[in-house]
Amino acid sequence: MVVKVHGPAYASCSRRVLACLVEKEIEFDIVPVDLLKGEQKSPEFLELQPFGVVPVIQDGDYTLYESRAIIRFYAEKYRTQGTDLLGKTVEERGVVEQWLEVEGQNYHPPIYTLVVQLLFHPKLGLPVDQKIVQECEEKLGKVLDVYEERLSKSKYLAGDFFSLADLTHLPFTHYLVNDIGKEHLVRDRKHVSAWWDDISSRPSWKKVLQL
Amino acid sequence: MVVKVHGPAYASCSRRVLACLVEKEIEFDIVPVDLLKGEQKSPEFLELQPFGVVPVIQDGDYTLYESRAIIRFYAEKYRTQGTDLLGKTVEERGVVEQWLEVEGQNYHPPIYTLVVQLLFHPKLGLPVDQKIVQECEEKLGKVLDVYEERLSKSKYLAGDFFSLADLTHLPFTHYLVNDIGKEHLVRDRKHVSAWWDDISSRPSWKKVLQL
Repeated sequence: MVVKVHGPAYASCSRRVLACLVEKEIEFDIVPVDLLKGEQKSPEFLELQPFGVVPVIQDGDYTLYESRAIIRFYAEKYRTQGTDLLGKTVEERGVVEQWLEVEGQNYHPPIYTLVVQLLFHPKLGLPVDQKIVQECEEKLGKVLDVYEERLSKSKYLAGDFFSLADLTHLPFTHYLVNDIGKEHLVRDRKHVSAWWDDISSRPSWKKVLQL
Repeated sequence: MVVKVHGPAYASCSRRVLACLVEKEIEFDIVPVDLLKGEQKSPEFLELQPFGVVPVIQDGDYTLYESRAIIRFYAEKYRTQGTDLLGKTVEERGVVEQWLEVEGQNYHPPIYTLVVQLLFHPKLGLPVDQKIVQECEEKLGKVLDVYEERLSKSKYLAGDFFSLADLTHLPFTHYLVNDIGKEHLVRDRKHVSAWWDDISSRPSWKKVLQL
C-alpha cells in the first residue's frame, strides 16, 4: 500500500514524516496542499485533519495526523524494515520517547517561534519582535546546553543509535542552521555541531530536501 | 521492583505518571521534591533530570523523565498488566499517539498558560495578564470544539477504550474544572463534559488526588 502524504513536501512537519518514511523504505505519494491558498482550512481537508494543519497520512482506509504520532506509527508498524528507529528493547524505546518529548515540549516551542519571527514574518511583511527573538534564543540555548552534555556521552540523543529522537529535530534545526542566521547556537557547541552534521547528512534527509 | 517517583504527588506532571502507575497496578514510592525550596534545581536532582523539572522515575538502575514518555514506557512494558492503555493493534496505538500529541501540542500550551496565570500568579503575588488569559481561553475553546466533535462519535479520544490519550488530560483539566473558574469550557460542550465526568471518576484518578 502506497502511503498518501497530504501536505506540501517543503512544510517542516511534512518533512518529519517524509524523513521517517524514507528511513523505513516505505513508498509514498505526496498529495499537494496549497497552504498559501488556505487549502488546509477547506471543508475537505478539515474532514481529514480537524485542526486544519499539515500533514495527514492516508494508508488504505487508515488516516492519521500529528507528525510525531505518524513517525511513531510507521517506526512500530515496520519495525524490522529499513532503519530501526525505536531501539531494541522497551527500555531503549523509553529513552527514545523521552527525547521525542524533550523535542516536542522544550526544543520546539522556542525554535518554532524563532523561525516564525525571523523567517516567516519578513516574508509576510510583518515586523520582527526582537524581544521575543532574544527570549527564545536564550531558552533554546539553555536547552542546547543540556543536549551538549548529553551528546558528549552518547553519539545520538537516545544512545549509540540513530532514532526518532534525532530525526524529529531535523526540520526546524535545518531552518536554524540554514535560514535564520542562528547557526552559532549549533556551531558553538562541539558535540551538538557534530551531531547535526551527522544526522543532517543522512541520505534520507538529503532526499527529503530535494522533494 | 518498586518504582521511585521523584516529585511531589500534587504536581500535575507527577499526577500524570501516578495515574498511569495506578492503572497498570505498578507499585511505587514517592520521593518528595520540595519545589518551593527549589530542590528540583539542586545538583543531585539535575543529575537525574538536567532540565530541573519533575517528575523523574527510577526503576532499578533505569532512569526516565518527561511524564508523557514515562507513561508510554510503563503502558508498553506492562502491556498485559492492569488497564491496557495503548489499544490492541498498532493502528489503535497510532490513534492513541495522535491524541497524545494533540494534547501535548494543542491542548497543553493554552491550558498551561491559563493555569499559570489564574492559579499560580495570584498565589505568588504576581499580576494576571487578562489579555493572555482571553487569548488562551479562545485557543483552548477552539481545541475543545474539535474534541466535542470527536467525542460525539467515540466514547474516548482514541476510540471506544480508555487510553493514555485520555489519561494525559487529567492533571490540567482538573485545574480547569476545579480551580480557575473556567469549568464552562468543559460544561458548555455536552460530549466533552460527559467524557470528563467519566475519566475523572476513575478510581485511579481519585486515588492520585488523595496522595
